[in-house]
Amino acid sequence: MLDSLFAELKKAQAALALANRSQKDGALRSVMKTLEADRAAILRANALDVERARASGMKDALIDRLLLNDKRITEIIQGIDVVVRQDDPVGRVEAGWTLPNGLFIERLTVPLGTVAIIYESRPNVTVDAFCLAYKAGCSILLRGSSAALESNRALVASIKRGLESGGGIPEAVALADSGSREDVDEILSARGKVDVVIPRGGRDLIRRVVDFARVPVIETGEGNCHIYADPTADLQRGVDIVENAKVQKPGACNAVETLLVHAAVADQFLPLVADRLKGRVTLRCCPRSKAAIVAASAAHGGYPGLVLQDATEEDWATEYLDYILAIRVVDSNDEAIEHINRYGTKHSEAILTNDLSASREFEARVDASCVYTNASIRFTDGAQFGFGAELGISTQKFHARGPMGLQALTTIKYRVSGSGQIRE
Amino acid sequence: MLDSLFAELKKAQAALALANRSQKDGALRSVMKTLEADRAAILRANALDVERARASGMKDALIDRLLLNDKRITEIIQGIDVVVRQDDPVGRVEAGWTLPNGLFIERLTVPLGTVAIIYESRPNVTVDAFCLAYKAGCSILLRGSSAALESNRALVASIKRGLESGGGIPEAVALADSGSREDVDEILSARGKVDVVIPRGGRDLIRRVVDFARVPVIETGEGNCHIYADPTADLQRGVDIVENAKVQKPGACNAVETLLVHAAVADQFLPLVADRLKGRVTLRCCPRSKAAIVAASAAHGGYPGLVLQDATEEDWATEYLDYILAIRVVDSNDEAIEHINRYGTKHSEAILTNDLSASREFEARVDASCVYTNASIRFTDGAQFGFGAELGISTQKFHARGPMGLQALTTIKYRVSGSGQIRE
Repeated sequence: MLDSLFAELKKAQAALALANRSQKDGALRSVMKTLEADRAAILRANALDVERARASGMKDALIDRLLLNDKRITEIIQGIDVVVRQDDPVGRVEAGWTLPNGLFIERLTVPLGTVAIIYESRPNVTVDAFCLAYKAGCSILLRGSSAALESNRALVASIKRGLESGGGIPEAVALADSGSREDVDEILSARGKVDVVIPRGGRDLIRRVVDFARVPVIETGEGNCHIYADPTADLQRGVDIVENAKVQKPGACNAVETLLVHAAVADQFLPLVADRLKGRVTLRCCPRSKAAIVAASAAHGGYPGLVLQDATEEDWATEYLDYILAIRVVDSNDEAIEHINRYGTKHSEAILTNDLSASREFEARVDASCVYTNASIRFTDGAQFGFGAELGISTQKFHARGPMGLQALTTIKYRVSGSGQIRE
Repeated sequence: MLDSLFAELKKAQAALALANRSQKDGALRSVMKTLEADRAAILRANALDVERARASGMKDALIDRLLLNDKRITEIIQGIDVVVRQDDPVGRVEAGWTLPNGLFIERLTVPLGTVAIIYESRPNVTVDAFCLAYKAGCSILLRGSSAALESNRALVASIKRGLESGGGIPEAVALADSGSREDVDEILSARGKVDVVIPRGGRDLIRRVVDFARVPVIETGEGNCHIYADPTADLQRGVDIVENAKVQKPGACNAVETLLVHAAVADQFLPLVADRLKGRVTLRCCPRSKAAIVAASAAHGGYPGLVLQDATEEDWATEYLDYILAIRVVDSNDEAIEHINRYGTKHSEAILTNDLSASREFEARVDASCVYTNASIRFTDGAQFGFGAELGISTQKFHARGPMGLQALTTIKYRVSGSGQIRE
């Protein structure tokens, strides 16, 4: 059923690839204006989605993801402005050289092509993904959650009006709005029609896409992330970092799920962590970390609200996305790195240390998109990194890794200029 | 059956990722020495393969691909030397910046991981692919054709001895030598064990790999390439380029398969082409190109050895890899570009022109890894481009495009250095 959409997107992309930065930015600025003008209609459409979601018993946390209000629409519009201000990722000369025979070769960045994004119920993703794609010269097929259908229809209609009135190419964006699962299957098998599929959502969606896709996929988001405190860590600073990485937004993929602590500092550090997180975060402990916390708690006459549980093997492999933190004591930096490389999802990993060689070894050996020394891993994010919006955070090594901004939507082309050269 | 090999390759890769350039180059130089010392044994093993291939009735052209001799072994060894001289693709800082809170972010190149290559009977690919992977810090699983089994065993044994004696990591290279098809199936489903599979061979192999792989794939090699002569083309130079692109190595993926000629120059250009290629290349013509050649031939009293056939729709989509050239007359640059984007395989495409805007438009609108103006497309090649050896020529847009050298075997990692930063 999507075949005519695919054809339209491909044709629109060929035209958009030739647009210059002024034309693309002008069209995006026009979209900012129509979104502003269409605020009331967008909020009305969103209210229908929210009402339907409430009636179907959706959890409050998920309804909050779905909900739009004036402040959020303002943020969405400001997000476009940040992308407009970014350099054009297309038409950069990455390298150029001349062969002995005079042939001149340049490596240029060009748009990747047609992008499809399959995502959950956050309506802001609709606009973020569209504006990154448009700026990168890519057409985009948006396949949002059916829970956000009315919101997405209103947003995409407003975007298309903005492109139309801003001299842009409205056909470069399309919403797959049948609400059926078959859309997803069609996207996943659209070889030659879609250049990349980006699933953005829970683990099950991503696994399903990776398993069934016959088009290139960028895996995103699954984050079983760790913080490791080595014997030289600044413990007061460490407590602030662990708290921030766990509590500031536990449902984010870059939240910490397991704290690893070197045995040499476990007795000092873990009581500080338990005291700071008590009443907010359940701690799932290995026997040694539990013993350290229990001893300190007893010495303090108890930490009110502290919940300690025993960690099992399964905990090391779990992305809780919740107010739960697994804790394990290790005997060496080596053991910490091996734990992370075994259980991690190649997302964001941090060491707390003042030992230069420990930091260097951690950075070199931990296989993750982002390796941190002495900072909260919550910074792994396109906006935080300065990319404007983000399409998601790639946890794969292929094509794009880490927070994906405009660059992830480009590929290269060799331009070869001659004066009659033939090969000997 | 390959599981223990996968585990060994992963472990070796983790160690190789930490090796510095001197260590990697030293190990590769040592491999050059053992290959030199093992010449006689390698040639004996190759003679067994060739004898078996002859007995089984393999075609001469394919036997020539399989055959090693002293000159070819020398070329293989020199190929390693070129890779040794290349810069280390790992550990480059591509970008670095500081956030307003002082967090310092660097984007570094790191090895892609474990690579698997599935290829046909050319034994030089065994060494080329190994040395590129090793220099890029990747381990590699080689799955060559069973026709080259003895040659590959001798080469890999020599490589491993060289790595051993040169202080390298012999476990970073392995040959899947059971000769069974199941090896291929296992490689294609080795998620989490193999970071990329590169099929290098005929269309059928590549299609099969793309269809069944659940690991990332880089498609290579299929080249239905075009040369287009516009009304302003230098026709004498054009004939040299067409001849070179067709005849110098017709079995190469970067050979020309279809010549497109603007109607304004068809009557002048096509007789020159027919005269130059007669007796060597069969011409499959559209009605207008046939008429132009027939008329010129009659005026010349015939071109001896000229073979003209009628082209069908199928010809436009065929990669002949043979002494056959399809020819079509078009009425505009637009029609030429549309023909190429419809039938081409995104490999190498050329325009012959002296019109600047025609050249620019062709370069911008033709969707191919390499777009040429006024040169033979036979230059699309890692060695010609100056990359040393090549892993193949990517015809996809994802991760790597065009001739693949060391850079195609790297990915990135963000290194984030802080002093206690937490997210507000």
